[in-house]
Amino acid sequence: MVAATGLIAGASILAPLGAYAATDDHGGAARNTGAKTAAIRESIVDGPAKNVILLIGDGMGDSEITVARNYAEGAAGAFAGIDALPLTGQYTTYALNKDGTPNYASESASTASGWSTGTKTNNGALSVDIAGTPQSTLLELAKANGLRTGNVSTAEIQDATPGAQIAHISARGCYGPVKTTANCASEALENGGLGSISEQLLTLRPDVVLGGGSATFNERAVAGDWAGQTLFEQATDRGYQLVNDAAGLASVAAADQSAPVLGLFTPGNFPTRWIGPDATVGGADLAPVSCTANPARLDTGLSLASLTDKAIDLLSADSKQGFFLQVEGASIDKRDHAADACGQIGETIDLDEAVQSALAFAKADGNTLVVVTADHAHTSQIVGSTPPGLSVALTTEEGSPMLVSYGTAEAGESQQHTGSQVRIAGYGPGAANVLGLTDQTDLFFTSSNALALNTDLRSLSAAATLTLDKATVTPGADFTATGAGLAADWRATSEVSTAASVDPLGVADVIDGQAVFTGTAPTAPGRYTVTLTGAQTGVSVSATLTVAAAGVTPAPTVDPSAGAVSGAGPTKTVAAGVASAIGGVLAATGAQVGPLVGAAALLLAAGGVLLAVRRRRNSLLQP
Amino acid sequence: MVAATGLIAGASILAPLGAYAATDDHGGAARNTGAKTAAIRESIVDGPAKNVILLIGDGMGDSEITVARNYAEGAAGAFAGIDALPLTGQYTTYALNKDGTPNYASESASTASGWSTGTKTNNGALSVDIAGTPQSTLLELAKANGLRTGNVSTAEIQDATPGAQIAHISARGCYGPVKTTANCASEALENGGLGSISEQLLTLRPDVVLGGGSATFNERAVAGDWAGQTLFEQATDRGYQLVNDAAGLASVAAADQSAPVLGLFTPGNFPTRWIGPDATVGGADLAPVSCTANPARLDTGLSLASLTDKAIDLLSADSKQGFFLQVEGASIDKRDHAADACGQIGETIDLDEAVQSALAFAKADGNTLVVVTADHAHTSQIVGSTPPGLSVALTTEEGSPMLVSYGTAEAGESQQHTGSQVRIAGYGPGAANVLGLTDQTDLFFTSSNALALNTDLRSLSAAATLTLDKATVTPGADFTATGAGLAADWRATSEVSTAASVDPLGVADVIDGQAVFTGTAPTAPGRYTVTLTGAQTGVSVSATLTVAAAGVTPAPTVDPSAGAVSGAGPTKTVAAGVASAIGGVLAATGAQVGPLVGAAALLLAAGGVLLAVRRRRNSLLQP
Repeated sequence: MVAATGLIAGASILAPLGAYAATDDHGGAARNTGAKTAAIRESIVDGPAKNVILLIGDGMGDSEITVARNYAEGAAGAFAGIDALPLTGQYTTYALNKDGTPNYASESASTASGWSTGTKTNNGALSVDIAGTPQSTLLELAKANGLRTGNVSTAEIQDATPGAQIAHISARGCYGPVKTTANCASEALENGGLGSISEQLLTLRPDVVLGGGSATFNERAVAGDWAGQTLFEQATDRGYQLVNDAAGLASVAAADQSAPVLGLFTPGNFPTRWIGPDATVGGADLAPVSCTANPARLDTGLSLASLTDKAIDLLSADSKQGFFLQVEGASIDKRDHAADACGQIGETIDLDEAVQSALAFAKADGNTLVVVTADHAHTSQIVGSTPPGLSVALTTEEGSPMLVSYGTAEAGESQQHTGSQVRIAGYGPGAANVLGLTDQTDLFFTSSNALALNTDLRSLSAAATLTLDKATVTPGADFTATGAGLAADWRATSEVSTAASVDPLGVADVIDGQAVFTGTAPTAPGRYTVTLTGAQTGVSVSATLTVAAAGVTPAPTVDPSAGAVSGAGPTKTVAAGVASAIGGVLAATGAQVGPLVGAAALLLAAGGVLLAVRRRRNSLLQP
Repeated sequence: MVAATGLIAGASILAPLGAYAATDDHGGAARNTGAKTAAIRESIVDGPAKNVILLIGDGMGDSEITVARNYAEGAAGAFAGIDALPLTGQYTTYALNKDGTPNYASESASTASGWSTGTKTNNGALSVDIAGTPQSTLLELAKANGLRTGNVSTAEIQDATPGAQIAHISARGCYGPVKTTANCASEALENGGLGSISEQLLTLRPDVVLGGGSATFNERAVAGDWAGQTLFEQATDRGYQLVNDAAGLASVAAADQSAPVLGLFTPGNFPTRWIGPDATVGGADLAPVSCTANPARLDTGLSLASLTDKAIDLLSADSKQGFFLQVEGASIDKRDHAADACGQIGETIDLDEAVQSALAFAKADGNTLVVVTADHAHTSQIVGSTPPGLSVALTTEEGSPMLVSYGTAEAGESQQHTGSQVRIAGYGPGAANVLGLTDQTDLFFTSSNALALNTDLRSLSAAATLTLDKATVTPGADFTATGAGLAADWRATSEVSTAASVDPLGVADVIDGQAVFTGTAPTAPGRYTVTLTGAQTGVSVSATLTVAAAGVTPAPTVDPSAGAVSGAGPTKTVAAGVASAIGGVLAATGAQVGPLVGAAALLLAAGGVLLAVRRRRNSLLQP
């Protein structure tokens, strides 16, 4: 007789899912509570969303997430933020070479440009295409569409990830005037370019900018209105609220276009949360170690989560106005480059806490898309035995050794980015667009579509108007020209012209769509054209300024080129139309009248001539 | 006057998404066609599913997918299979140590056991928990629930991934009797264990098994009914259809429990599709090369896609019966271990084609869950410059160089698995369970829940019956005992007993829930108990055999231990009840009556005494 083989002892009684906690029990390691299909179905919400918060773990590939989770939460644990987003996918992060061929190993500038603009570019370039042509960014488009905007990073604020939202430049290193003059000469202000990353930031005027990189702001502008002044002086002159510590940030009660917040808390990048041994050759053979707190870490009021909370508070203060906010945990990447496992893990935890902040807001708000992803994958790998390159052994929170390998560069050199697709996860309206395989550039469309952004910048400034405080002035008298509705322009130029002469009135910041110029009327009586041109869109508007001796009333005329009536009297019909056209952008400032704000009120009060005409840039109206 | 800076030439006119094909255009690299939310919503379908197909890319982490996609489809390309599944997530792949602590670097046995059984285990173990207790597998449970089952791999069929579905053993290397005697002694047949992986496979009797690993089947069994015979001889004796080449496989018209298909096409693992240079130190500095076809590749009729197609054809032949099929692309892992980029890429393409086959069936069928994932991540990384370890430069299909680094082992040694979370993707009913962060063990529940599997094996055999062809026999006469409804048993034992003696009838394979024993009645008149015990569940059923001289009619008696009437006459009421209880499993064989099959018909025709009583194993009924 044959023995009765084949008994599967114990296998016939299976515990119900979730009945056990121990990972060695059947079902004990499962994460799905069994109601996922219904939960996923509920989590798929159509856009538009009112707000978008993008949280970027720089260099946070799937391996880096796992390294950090294992260490901090245990292998069976989960991050309360990063791992909590219900809708997940993978996206490709490749860059292009200047000739358009693919570059399979990208870096933070090309990748951040990808989601910031929807356009692939070459490594090192910020939000320009491979031909060098600037591409509109999510932050710019959000602002142009009347949303508040924020940019938060633990890196220098000029670094690639935050930089891609605020600047268009061929080389990511051109932080300030010094490097730009040296390395990005054609893009320097003195050569008619957009200027350094920091100078472009000051011009773009996001409502809230928080990060490191203050050192660059001590550089002095080489050209422009603030030539010879430091960028800090320039920022103050342009109305920024400058803060450099936790107390200062805590004291900020509001942030808007009149008084944006620029919080720069370190000269360079933030110190990391944790420190530990750098990986070494044979490091995984050493006794496993635990990470320790970095004594140089900033005040917890300046943690990434705190900055995220503060940014959200400031950006969401006006319940009628949506916002776009980007938050970067920058040094996951930087510490991975340095083969510093504890550094990268601590920064991942920091980002996780920021994600928790964002999710808490989004859940309460109910109308916010939150996306968490990385710009590119990185080197660190979990292995089972000591590899030939750099490695380190850590003792995780569950007391087990985890070996981490850094094998893409020699000791002392920078470990390399890697070209793997990376995780992207979303929550909120439009988040289903992250599922499956997408590309990094899809995140631009996921975000801009969620916010229903009009991406045609010209059209956003097309309803611009120009108002003169006095339609008729005496020779040499002062007058004020106020442009409004320049939603997609950050600066504007103005000039007074005749067929024979052009007299510039200068350049002004556009604040809440408005730009105000004061000028002195020509001494020769006659009709002049005052023209205002948006610097970003090229949209021009003009009005007729009549210079006449006191007591002389000029006859009304028709301006043939504008096709609209111009004259001395109030034109209430046009003004009403204008108010309607700019209402979206100006809604927040309607009641306030002053030299730099309140143009909507000015507009209704003034008797100036209005011409809302869209023209090519530099085209001049004849008087 | 200040120059009008800040013009964003060209940025104001954005092309509609999808208007361009070039990756350097705005939106040109985006993959989302803009209708994803609706498509995702449609793709979320509640279970149950009729069929489940799991496709495993061994070692196919996100990096390996990207390496292969870049090479074969281009960076902006997509795999028609792997990348086409709409619902995606990440899962953790850690193993346990024997003491229950986590092991962050797992391998194919522990990981395959995770999804096969829902129970984490230690590295090297196949579908036993860390205490060594066997855990029911998806394939076993599917079979026990009346589904057809298949197991396909490009590896030896005993290898970890296919092995975890078919065997329970402490060491993955115990393929056959030789290694099992040597290395898994307590689990060897000769020691009362379940036997080697190959022998467990033969006992489990999946309908379709296709892969490599024929060499082991030339080993001879050490114990059991086929002691001294080769496993091939055993397979033939047990009714398998054996095939070893493409023509043989093509000629197979059907596969079922009566005649399962065992196709073993290579002595070891399949040769790979592609070959190329192994990575070397400094290899990425050499001129980039292209992969080439492997002249040793098997007939395309034996490609993984062809095997998948054939398995699906055979398993879906009965439109009323669902199936569970696992398909493994095994050598992505094996070639990654060998730092052979071309090898791993070719195998990824092979798997992709198999996924296409599975998706084509699932889409047409409309009631099939398809899941594509990996068991664990691996070493290969895409880098931007030559790393210090092994590397290779390949020219991709788009003509660009891609540098691949292998940095976890020295030249000549095996590159290591890595512990990153990996992608999991699904299509069909229940697929939403793969979203977000899950664990590998969740895939067991995702699959078993999708198939609505009853995981209580005892209950699946609880309605078993035992039928005697004659309730009363003359002393020493032959009789037949037929067990039926043993849905969760692969083998059964039987014996004839009195209070004083036990006479074994032997062991028989359970085929479609039925096991048939022939015996010779005792020579002493009296009432005996015939007992049949399922070897996997321990479920026992019994009947009373009366031995009486010719012409003597024994009086009816009541069996007090069974609580059921036993006697000589037909008991149609009980028989009807039994027929109902076993209908699901036996539906396919109802009309066929024969010595080894057709027990349902036998049951209704026979006048034997039926007792459908569930008992503890080894408990004996008194006569």
